[in-house]
Parts: sequence; structure tokens; C-alpha cells
Amino acid sequence: MTRDEPLTVADIARLAQARLPRELWDYVAGGSGAETTLAANRAALDEVAVLSRVLAGTTEPDSATRLLGSASSMPLAVAPMAYQRLLHPDGEFAAAEAAQAAGVPYVVSTLASVSVEEIAKTGATTWFQLYWLRSPGVVESLVARAEDAGCEALMVTVDVPVMGRRLRDARNSFVLPDDVVAAHLTDGAVGRAHDRVPGSSAIAAHTAAVFAPGLGWPDIEWLRDRTSLPLVLKGILDPRDAVRAAESGVDAVVVSNHGGRQLDGAAPSILALPAVAEALTGRAAVYLDSGISTGTDILRALASGADGVLVGRPVLYGLAADGARGVGRVLSLLTEEFRAAMTLAGCTDIAAVRALSTVRTVRAS
Amino acid sequence: MTRDEPLTVADIARLAQARLPRELWDYVAGGSGAETTLAANRAALDEVAVLSRVLAGTTEPDSATRLLGSASSMPLAVAPMAYQRLLHPDGEFAAAEAAQAAGVPYVVSTLASVSVEEIAKTGATTWFQLYWLRSPGVVESLVARAEDAGCEALMVTVDVPVMGRRLRDARNSFVLPDDVVAAHLTDGAVGRAHDRVPGSSAIAAHTAAVFAPGLGWPDIEWLRDRTSLPLVLKGILDPRDAVRAAESGVDAVVVSNHGGRQLDGAAPSILALPAVAEALTGRAAVYLDSGISTGTDILRALASGADGVLVGRPVLYGLAADGARGVGRVLSLLTEEFRAAMTLAGCTDIAAVRALSTVRTVRAS
Amino acid sequence: MTRDEPLTVADIARLAQARLPRELWDYVAGGSGAETTLAANRAALDEVAVLSRVLAGTTEPDSATRLLGSASSMPLAVAPMAYQRLLHPDGEFAAAEAAQAAGVPYVVSTLASVSVEEIAKTGATTWFQLYWLRSPGVVESLVARAEDAGCEALMVTVDVPVMGRRLRDARNSFVLPDDVVAAHLTDGAVGRAHDRVPGSSAIAAHTAAVFAPGLGWPDIEWLRDRTSLPLVLKGILDPRDAVRAAESGVDAVVVSNHGGRQLDGAAPSILALPAVAEALTGRAAVYLDSGISTGTDILRALASGADGVLVGRPVLYGLAADGARGVGRVLSLLTEEFRAAMTLAGCTDIAAVRALSTVRTVRAS
Amino acid sequence: MTRDEPLTVADIARLAQARLPRELWDYVAGGSGAETTLAANRAALDEVAVLSRVLAGTTEPDSATRLLGSASSMPLAVAPMAYQRLLHPDGEFAAAEAAQAAGVPYVVSTLASVSVEEIAKTGATTWFQLYWLRSPGVVESLVARAEDAGCEALMVTVDVPVMGRRLRDARNSFVLPDDVVAAHLTDGAVGRAHDRVPGSSAIAAHTAAVFAPGLGWPDIEWLRDRTSLPLVLKGILDPRDAVRAAESGVDAVVVSNHGGRQLDGAAPSILALPAVAEALTGRAAVYLDSGISTGTDILRALASGADGVLVGRPVLYGLAADGARGVGRVLSLLTEEFRAAMTLAGCTDIAAVRALSTVRTVRAS
Ligand SMILES: Cc1cc2nc3c(=O)[nH]c(=O)nc-3n(C[C@H](O)[C@H](O)[C@H](O)COP(=O)(O)O)c2cc1C
Ligand SMILES: Cc1cc2nc3c(=O)[nH]c(=O)nc-3n(C[C@H](O)[C@H](O)[C@H](O)COP(=O)(O)O)c2cc1C
Ligand SMILES: Cc1cc2nc3c(=O)[nH]c(=O)nc-3n(C[C@H](O)[C@H](O)[C@H](O)COP(=O)(O)O)c2cc1C
Ligand SMILES: Cc1cc2nc3c(=O)[nH]c(=O)nc-3n(C[C@H](O)[C@H](O)[C@H](O)COP(=O)(O)O)c2cc1C
Repeated sequence: MTRDEPLTVADIARLAQARLPRELWDYVAGGSGAETTLAANRAALDEVAVLSRVLAGTTEPDSATRLLGSASSMPLAVAPMAYQRLLHPDGEFAAAEAAQAAGVPYVVSTLASVSVEEIAKTGATTWFQLYWLRSPGVVESLVARAEDAGCEALMVTVDVPVMGRRLRDARNSFVLPDDVVAAHLTDGAVGRAHDRVPGSSAIAAHTAAVFAPGLGWPDIEWLRDRTSLPLVLKGILDPRDAVRAAESGVDAVVVSNHGGRQLDGAAPSILALPAVAEALTGRAAVYLDSGISTGTDILRALASGADGVLVGRPVLYGLAADGARGVGRVLSLLTEEFRAAMTLAGCTDIAAVRALSTVRTVRAS
Repeated sequence: MTRDEPLTVADIARLAQARLPRELWDYVAGGSGAETTLAANRAALDEVAVLSRVLAGTTEPDSATRLLGSASSMPLAVAPMAYQRLLHPDGEFAAAEAAQAAGVPYVVSTLASVSVEEIAKTGATTWFQLYWLRSPGVVESLVARAEDAGCEALMVTVDVPVMGRRLRDARNSFVLPDDVVAAHLTDGAVGRAHDRVPGSSAIAAHTAAVFAPGLGWPDIEWLRDRTSLPLVLKGILDPRDAVRAAESGVDAVVVSNHGGRQLDGAAPSILALPAVAEALTGRAAVYLDSGISTGTDILRALASGADGVLVGRPVLYGLAADGARGVGRVLSLLTEEFRAAMTLAGCTDIAAVRALSTVRTVRAS
Repeated sequence: MTRDEPLTVADIARLAQARLPRELWDYVAGGSGAETTLAANRAALDEVAVLSRVLAGTTEPDSATRLLGSASSMPLAVAPMAYQRLLHPDGEFAAAEAAQAAGVPYVVSTLASVSVEEIAKTGATTWFQLYWLRSPGVVESLVARAEDAGCEALMVTVDVPVMGRRLRDARNSFVLPDDVVAAHLTDGAVGRAHDRVPGSSAIAAHTAAVFAPGLGWPDIEWLRDRTSLPLVLKGILDPRDAVRAAESGVDAVVVSNHGGRQLDGAAPSILALPAVAEALTGRAAVYLDSGISTGTDILRALASGADGVLVGRPVLYGLAADGARGVGRVLSLLTEEFRAAMTLAGCTDIAAVRALSTVRTVRAS
Repeated sequence: MTRDEPLTVADIARLAQARLPRELWDYVAGGSGAETTLAANRAALDEVAVLSRVLAGTTEPDSATRLLGSASSMPLAVAPMAYQRLLHPDGEFAAAEAAQAAGVPYVVSTLASVSVEEIAKTGATTWFQLYWLRSPGVVESLVARAEDAGCEALMVTVDVPVMGRRLRDARNSFVLPDDVVAAHLTDGAVGRAHDRVPGSSAIAAHTAAVFAPGLGWPDIEWLRDRTSLPLVLKGILDPRDAVRAAESGVDAVVVSNHGGRQLDGAAPSILALPAVAEALTGRAAVYLDSGISTGTDILRALASGADGVLVGRPVLYGLAADGARGVGRVLSLLTEEFRAAMTLAGCTDIAAVRALSTVRTVRAS
């Protein structure tokens, strides 16, 4: 490690920001509306303080766990994120390579800019994230492709009936560059993501054109019947929905506000987590995302009831900073930090982390 | 939409501030005293975080509702605000035109600078806001004019026994310009609002001269007998008053601190709302104002117990920025934002919004 | 009122600061230690939000009350403060004159720089504040002088066993100017307050020399027997002490942290108040000081359980700004503000103010 | 005292910062990770507000107490801190001299840069802090040396299974200067603390090399059998561990997050304290460290359940500023401040301090 090598995800974010054109940075780092939820995600995590345990009596913490039946080196998966070729020519391929090397699952977005079949070549454990698309039969065919490509789980994102109001993108009249396309989408609407309309986001226009509005519980039940893969719902905040998901045969939920990119004013995930976790005890797994950027954050999430976390933007920062190497650095930093945090908190394994107590502390500003 | 078109009410507020002479801006945007309540309104709204629901299964949210029996395209009415010709020559007429186009009720102030009869010509659903005036018979004749002009409700403002101590106006020695007058007032006292007295507000002096001090429950009961229109009390914070209102035959209350313009130190409306709503369940409708400036704010209010909201300053900012068009833009922004928020929160109709859960979050500064 | 006339106590504080040499300003405005308690007094008051009442049905609020049997135009007395000639040549005389004109009690400090007999000539309602002094017989003779001069109550300050660590004074090597002396003290120790010792406060040295350490409940009981005047203890924060006071025949307590000048880290008075008020219901009166600087603050205190407030620094700011006239302006501002606050909160009398509900709000910074 | 003499620990910290090379300052003053816990320690202490008592009736507070059977002039011991010769050539010797003069125990670190036998010559009451080292027999021989040197207690630090991620040290590529060595360590690994590795801390590398990983309860029980000295565990936050400690025959615990230097995200000690103190009532003593820097902080800790505190960095600031004299100044300031705080809070002895009530106040920023 050289002196200037990044020591934290925040360091890598700074590198990424320095490299990216402003509108790309804004697209990745930004949130919706007044970015209240984006900021609250961070603030609420900072307020979770852990009561470390001591004298655990083991040398090395065991951070390994199973996530939806897939083995993982730690309780973390790479969150599904669209269009990763925006950040680096190798896009999803590079990110999945790094996930493979780190031994954590990689979630392939419906809007990936590299196809699931290509990504599968990295050998990474993959899960496939589904957006419900308008064109008839497309969802079914995506499920089939995912299954064929060896994906080990399906994750339906349920918090994007429409795209959140991302003002930075609208002000930047954001469009995808011509060479970045949604690899799994074939209909003509794809072009919408490239058409610049002053004062609005082409991504949002594209989403509106291709996403099926009106996704509902019957669709989830249809999918449950259609596939034997583990099924995850991403974007749950209310325990009532969590319970309904379990009743519909869903295997796990992701407590998420989509990183503050959908409803501005939605609860910080970490505040919504405990009630969801309690409602699902013994019935379904519970993951959390939105704001996780240090090993301590992972500890906070597990101590608050999660079985694991998804990590979004940090992976893109790594990708922008240095492709697969950069993502590798992000994942190894988080691994190092999380394992150190486990050790410092006196936890020999993941079960011990989940048994930690927390208190709500004050946030010094 | 062009690139620089406003995307939020805050953008429109900036446009208005740029256009208005400072003393007018201060009159509109300011609050009373140290502006503690003005600031707390915003801060307290930001701390209400919503647990979105998912998989509602419908395409388009239905934001339509009934407010006091009047149909409305969304749970919002334009708050009563005095002297709108201060902001634009067309004043109330322009604002009501925009409300009509947006399909929301417009509340005509006793201190309107355009008469209720003129405003009625816009075809807007109107309610009439009553201040209790000293001159004998004036209230009764205002009620009659309101009824004759087709107003669909009467709203008695109960939080202005005297005007709040608005220091900006006093420091600006604020007066109305000669061509802006209270169209419904005829007695000589009107002139007081135009007489500059260094170090004090002519508006406050005028109010003191014409408002009847000592408005009480018997007056409300007299009015209840006098008219068959729905009756609303605006400016309720304590549940004891809410219950008394329901017992007096009042149809609705507005939980309000007058936008932080009356008692500095009064509770943020959103914090006072839940207890009032609980006390009135099934007995009277509950509206809220003070600080509402985004679609998410409307969601927050309804999730906290309100049946609808009034919006004040944002409408005046629209009026100052671009007359009826500007107000139209404000209302369409709020509609768009609220409908998007409903969709993102998984709510297909207003009942679903009212069934949302909230948590108190941290405010990141 | 001219345009630049002060409209708030804060305006007057600024005038005073502009006029006073820095070391005097520091002596008056400062607190002890890191000034945590000083700042928390203000912050905690700002967090008390009032649920205004409506439709009280009267014209003019009646702010008159009785404080310890003395009639007062409002529930406020001027706090005892040492050496007022520091701020203006007329010192206590001017301040008491203004209190007399405003119809509120004036509390004469043991360390007054004008004698109680002189102050009595203003015709103000006076109470006498006692510090327990070392020299034998001095307390008894002060009590006799106070009784003879017509003081209507005795207030024993119990939170100054020694002076708080006021770092500003130490850094300023603060001394009293030669012409300001404690008019009631006669022994040689008086000189200590004038001897400059680099890096420490001469006032603190003087206090240490003349105050009797070890004041205890037996002394209070002795005094209770000695005088038939109403007896007040100033500086109570813990309800256990409040109850003990009532049991010792004390008529009232002042919930106070001495304006943040004694124990840094002591609770803001407004947070300590409710438990003390509850413990004393029907047994003794409860006053509050520390941070009161607006009419709304008085409302907050009464709504939180106080029967009245003492006001300290604002009076000295008025005195520094413009002698008796300045104090008059402070008191008339507070009267105006408090009466306006009563009206706006729908309170016709002091009993109504005490029946207001409060909520803890967020402090927007 | 001259005018510019330091009046607070903060003043002394400034002097130290001015004198120390930046990397030494960072090593001492810094914390781990994002320094969330470091900042929260201070913020949480500031939020503990005390309800002072009054009329205690004694002249001088008695701050004397027993700590683990050792007499102490006040409820404070100097925390164990490594390598004190970094701050001053006389290092631990000077600090212990000052502790002796102040009458408080001095805890000798395993990583002291002056040997326990040398330190013992100061005549200070010493306790010996144990890190568990890899080399077989070293712990046992350290215990024997400590016993022989007259140490009156053994304190096992249980929160350093590995060193926390101290980013400042990593960024500074921190190493010990050649002339500062761990006096009690003899094996070859000592050199690691002097080998500069760009981008990482040599201290951390050294620790990793010499500390025995996997310290557990059986080791504590072994030690309990091995020595008859009082036994303390330092670094407890969870009441479950506190209870287990008492069951293992431990005499006291230190509620500590190691001054924010180990797990970033660990709870502020003062927030963890009450539950630990309650769990141990009557079973073991409870001390607290992390952030104590004023006399009021000591009061806060005792009022929250502690029997005493350890003070870390302030001692090093004193040492850097002026050797034994500087430490003496820190300890006399804390003594003066604590005794003043006792007096101002109406406490005649330590039992009274522990009986104080507290409220959680707002932190004004
Ligand atoms: C640039 C970007 C693109 C995203 N694309 C998707 C997506 O295609 N599908 C999806 O379910 N979530 C998507 N997300 C949301 C992430 O999966 C995840 O919920 C969120 O980023 C978590 O917050 P974090 O970034 O703070 O870790 C995206 C997020 C970002 C930042
Ligand atoms: C310039 C201005 C004039 C107002 N005039 C009236 C009025 O005549 N009658 C009334 O009941 N409320 C009046 N209000 C209060 C509003 O009806 C409403 O309660 C308040 O503005 C709500 O807060 P908001 O501005 O944050 O939405 C006025 C408010 C403003 C800003
Ligand atoms: C300059 C100054 C001198 C004071 N002198 C006395 C005094 O002689 N006796 C006393 O009981 N309190 C004294 N106090 C405390 C006040 O009576 C009162 O408790 C405090 O100022 C209340 O806080 P406020 O200044 O925020 O209103 C003094 C306060 C100040 C600011
Ligand atoms: C420079 C430094 C070195 C330390 N070395 C040790 C040590 O050798 N052993 C130990 O148990 N704690 C060590 N500590 C932790 C302290 O004993 C103590 O827990 C911490 O400093 C308390 O926080 P404070 O500095 O805010 O008072 C060290 C702390 C510092 C600042």
C-alpha cells in the first residue's frame, strides 16, 4: 500500500468524483427531491452505536455466511445497479469479476449494460434483479435467461413503480451516452434513454416508457410459481408488506429506500429495519441497503436485525476510480473493515454480530 | 419545459425573491418574533419519514378527494391570503384562475384585494375566509356576499385576535401601496394600511383598527346558526379546542400556526396534528397548513392524520414570479410531486395515504 | 417609535455590547466553564412549543398577578443582580425606578452598589436578596435593614456556595472600578473586589472572602423563624430540595441555574421546572429564571409550571444602553410581547397561561 | 497564576498541539475510522445535565475516595497510556510523579516506555495494565514484576484484540522514534514499531505482532487465580459482559471505548454506563473513561453511575506542554474544577455526587 492509496470508501468516492464528468457523478451520487432521505440515511446510521462485546476468545472472526443459500465470504452483496458501463468500459463485467474475487454475490440489474450471460463468465455468484417491463413476455424471458445463466436468486425491485424525481438529472438534462445501452432490452423504447430533452432526465423518460406500471402482489405470486429460485423483494419499509411477502412465499426482503433515489421523505432504512426484522423472525431473511459505506455500517445493520447488506454506490465509485481493481479495493476495504469491526466488537461469527446491542447516540456535527 | 424552468417550489421562491422589492418579500416570506416557529415548521416536516408501501398494483394513483363536500383534484386548497395584488396586478383573480384550472378550492380572504364576486367569475371552487370585524353588521353582510357569490364553505380564522409581531415589517415600516386595498372593507379605517409610521407595520395598525377583539365561541355558534354552509375553524393547535369546535357544529378545523406569522413559539402544525386528528376521528375533518412546499409534505401531513392541506406562500411566490401562469406552475408541481409521491409510496388513493405509517427521523444539517 | 428603535431585547443587547468595554460585557453576558449551560438555557427554551388556545372571547388579556403577595403587572420580577452601577451611574436606582414604572417587583441584591434604603425611594415593590456572609450578625442586620426599608420578601440565593468558574472574567483579570462598591458591605474585605490579580477574577476573590461557606437548611430554618416576610429560595433544580424547602416553611422557590454562571453542566432551568412544579403543587410558588428574554419565553415558563419568572441580563442591557429609560424599554418590550403572546395564545389571564399545553419541538439551526 | 496560564484542559491541549509535531499530535488526539465515536464521547457528555443540590451545609467538599482499595484524593486515576516518552523525555516517570503529588493512582501501561520499577520510584500509587502478549510466559512475568514493584491492582485491557483502524496514523505512516521503546518488552518484535511502512501505522503492525489474539474468559479466570491483587477489566460496554466479569471474580470494570480509538461506532461510554452500573450494583466497582476533560465531566460520570473515572489524553497534553509540571497542572485543574463542581452541586462527599440526578439536555451548537 502506498501512502496515497485510499484507506476508506470516502477516499475512493473522492477519486471517482475527480474522474467523472459532473453529470455522471450527479447521476450516481445524487438522490431524489431535496435529498432529505439521502442525507438521513447517513445520519441515521451514524446514530446507531454498538455495545461491543469482549473476551470472545478466538483468533480470527469468521465473517462467512449464507445469503439466500449462496455462500458468501461476508454478509454483503453488490446491489443491482443499472448501466455500469457509464463508469468504466468493462462495466458490469469488471464489477462482477471483483465480486467473484471477493467471494460475494453480485446482483445483475435488469438494466445492466452487459448481459447476464457475459457477466456469468466471471464465475461470480449472481442473482438477477427484475424490473417489471411492459412488453408482454419479457419478464418471463428474463427469468428464463437468468435461470439459464446460473443466477442463484431473483430479486424483484418493488420501489420503482416510476422513477423518483431526481432533480440533478433533470437540471443536467441527463442522457445515456450512445455506447451505453440496456443489454437485456430489445424493444425500440431503448432509444429514449439517449434522447436529450432539456430540463428532464432521459433515464426517467425511458423508465416510464418501458416499466410496467401497476406491479402487484399477484405478479409476485405468479413469479413465485414460475421459478424455484429463491425470491427476494427489494424496497420494503413497512412491516405489513414484509409479512405479506412472507405469506406470498418470498424468501427474503431488502429493507431499502433505494439509496434515497425514490421517495424523498421515505424513512432511512436503518430506522425501518428493526420492525421489519422483528415481523419476519424465522419466516424470511432480511437484508438492508441505503448508505452502507463502512465495515461499521455493516455491523450496525446486522446488530439492528439484518442478515446482510447490499452495497450500491461504493461499488460504482470503485469502478469509476479503477475498474475491476477499484471495485476490488472497495470490497477488500469493506471486508477488512468489517472483519476488524467484528474483532473489535468481540464477535467470532455472524450470529454474534446479530446478537450485539445498540443504543441511539448523538450525532456530533 | 426548458432547462431553466423551475423544478421545485424552492426554485419559484427564488424567482419571486429576485423580482420582489425586499419589503414585499419580507412581508410574504417572514414570520413573527425570532421566526422560531417559521423555521420549526420546516424542520419538523423534514423529520417525518414515511414507511412507503409496495405492490399496490395500480397504474395511476387517484389523488381526487372531497374537501368539505367540494370535489378537489387533490387534497389541497389555496390558503386564504390577504392583498394578493401586492404580488401581481391580477392578484386574487389570477390565483383563483390557476386554482380553477388545477381543480382545487381557492379560499378568498376577508382582506382580498379583489372582491369575492370578481373572483367567482373564474369559476373556481371558492370558500370564504372570515375575519371578525368591528363594524356592526359587516360580518353578516360578508357572509351574505360569500353565499351569494357561490362560496361553498366558510372558514373562520381564529388565530388572529391581533396580528403577530412581525419584526421585518416593523423594521421596514411596511405599508400597502396606494393601489392595493381590501376590496371587501368600506369603512374609513382602510386608510390605516397605507399610512407609513416609522418603525411599525401599517398592516398591523390597520388590523388592530378593524378586527373585532374578543371573538369567542358564542360568535361561532351564532355563525353556525346563521349559515348552512360547511364551517371551518382555521388556527387550531390544542385538541381541547378541536373537540369544542366539533361540539359547536363545526365541520372541519385547520391545524395551523398561520405559517409562523402569529405566535412565535407556537408548535409546528405537523407536531400538533396527530393529537387533534385523533380527538376528531369521525367527528370533523382535519386540515393542516404551515410549511407545506412539496408533494412529500402533503404525504407527510396525510400520513400524520390530516384530510388535506392548505398551501400559502408557495402560491404567492408563483403569483409574483408569473401571475396566473406562475400559480399554475406551483400547483402543477405540487400535483405532480404529490402524485409521484403517492405512486412511490404505493398508495392508490387518499385513504391509502392516510394509512401510511411514519417514523421520526433525524434531520441531517 | 423611530425606525431604529430597538424592537427586541436582542436589539438592546446589541446596543449594550456596543457601549460597554469588553470586560464589562463579558462579566455580564458570560457564563461559567465552557458555557454549556448558558447555551443550553436558550436552546431548551426554544424547544418548548406551545399549543395556543383560541376563541377566548375577551378583548384584553389580564397579565396582572400576585407574586409572593405583592401585586405585579405581570408575572415577572427583576432578578437580583450585583453592582448595577457598573452599567450606569444611577445603577440600581435607575433599574428600580423602571421596575416601579412597569409595576413589577425589583429584587435588591446583597451586593447592590446602591443601598436598599436609596432604592426604596423609587417606590418600587422590592424584595431583598440575601447572600450569607461570614461576619457575624451581618445577615441579621441585612434582614433588619430590608424589613425597615419596606422590602416585601426575602430571597436567599442558595446556588452560590462559591462563585462559578467564570473564565472570561479570569482571562480579563476582572476587577470592579474604584467607584463601584457593595453598598451593604462594610468590612475591609470589600477592597478585594478592586484588587487586580492577573489571570483571576477579583469578584470571585471577594466573594470567597466574604460569603459564609456552609450555608445549610438550619440557617434557612433560623431565618424562617426570624422574619415574617415571605421567604424564597433561589437556585433550586432538584425536586427533593424543593420539597424540603416547602417543609421548612419556604413560600417560593426560583428554579434557576443562575443564568449559567454557577455550575457549568447544570440542567437548563426550563427542563428542571416541570418536576419541581409538580412536587410543589399547592405547597409553594415556583418561579423560573435563566435565559428569559422574550414574551414567549415567559409563556413557555408558565406553561411548563412556573408562577412567574425573574429576568436578569436583559435588565442590565437596558441599563447599559440607556439607564432607567433603557430598563423601561426592556420591561415595556417584555410586557408588550408577553401580553401579545397571551392574546395570540388565547389566554385571558395568568391561570389560562398556566393551563397551556406544550410539546417538545425541534430546534432548527 | 499569570494571565496567560492555562485555565482549562482545552487551553493545555492547545499548548500541546502547538508544541508537538503533527504526527505525534494526530497519534494522541486522533481516533479510529471516521472518528464518530471520538466526537460522540464529547457530545454525549455535554448532553448530561445535572440537577444540583443545595444547602449541603459544609465548608469544603470531601473529594477523597477509595479506588480498588487504594486511597485517592479524588475519584480519578491516570489511564494507562503507551509510550509516554513520545511526549516528553521523562515520560511515564514525570506523569507518575505528578500523579503521586496529586494523590491519584497512576496506571502503568504494558507498553510503557519507562519500566514499572522506575515508575515505582516516584512513590505513586500504581496499578499495572496488562495487554496479553504472544510470547509464552510473558504475561506471567509481567504480573510478577508488577506485584514486586508494588502495584496495587491489575487492569486487563479487553478492547484491543487488534488495534483500531486509526487513519491519521496510517496516513502519516506513523512510527515510533528510535529512542522510544516499550520498556517491558524484550523480544525482537519491538523493532516493528520503528519500521516505517508508507500508508500504514508501525504501532499497529507492532501490536499485531506481539499481542496474543484470542484472549478469552478462561485467561481472566487464570489470572484471577494467579494473583490476589484487585482485578479490573478495561473496555466493557455491554452489561452482559459486566455481569460475567463479576461472576469471574473481577473487582471492577472500566466502561470505555478506549477514547474512540478502537471500534468506530462503539457507544459513547457515558451512554453505556447506566446499564452497566445498574447490573453491577453491589457486585463490582464501575469506572468510566473516554472524553473526560473537565471537573463537570467527572460529576456527570459519577451522577450516571460511575465510582470514578480514568483520564487519558489530558495527561498527555500536560506532559507535552510541560512535563511533570504540565501533568501537575492538568491534575490540579481537574481537582479544582471537580471540587468546585461538587461544591456548586451541593455535594459534600462522593456518595452525594453519586446520588445526583441528571436529565438529558439539548446540545447547543
Ligand atoms: C446509479 C445507480 C443505479 C441503480 N440501479 C438500480 C437498478 O437497476 N435496480 C435496482 O433494483 N436498484 C438500483 N439502484 C439502487 C441500488 O440497488 C441500491 O438500492 C442503492 O444504491 C443502495 O444505496 P447505496 O447506494 O447508498 O448503497 C441503483 C442505484 C444507483 C446509485
Ligand atoms: C402574505 C400572507 C397573507 C396571509 N393572509 C391571511 C389572511 O388574510 N387570512 C388568513 O386566514 N390567513 C392568512 N395567511 C395565512 C395563510 O392562510 C396560511 O395559514 C399560512 O400562510 C400557511 O403557511 P404557509 O405559507 O407556510 O403555507 C396569510 C399568509 C401569508 C403568507
Ligand atoms: C451580572 C450579574 C450579576 C448577578 N448578581 C446576582 C446577585 O447578586 N445575586 C443573585 O442571587 N443572583 C445574581 N445574578 C443571577 C440573577 O439573579 C439570575 O439568576 C440570572 O441572571 C438569570 O439569568 P438571565 O440573566 O438569563 O435572566 C446575577 C446575574 C448577573 C448576570
Ligand atoms: C496515546 C494513547 C495511548 C494509549 N495507550 C493505552 C495502553 O497502552 N493501554 C490501554 O489500556 N489503553 C491505552 N489507551 C487508552 C486510554 O487508557 C483510555 O482508555 C482513553 O485514552 C480514554 O479516553 P480519553 O483519552 O478521552 O480520556 C491509550 C490512549 C491514548 C490516547
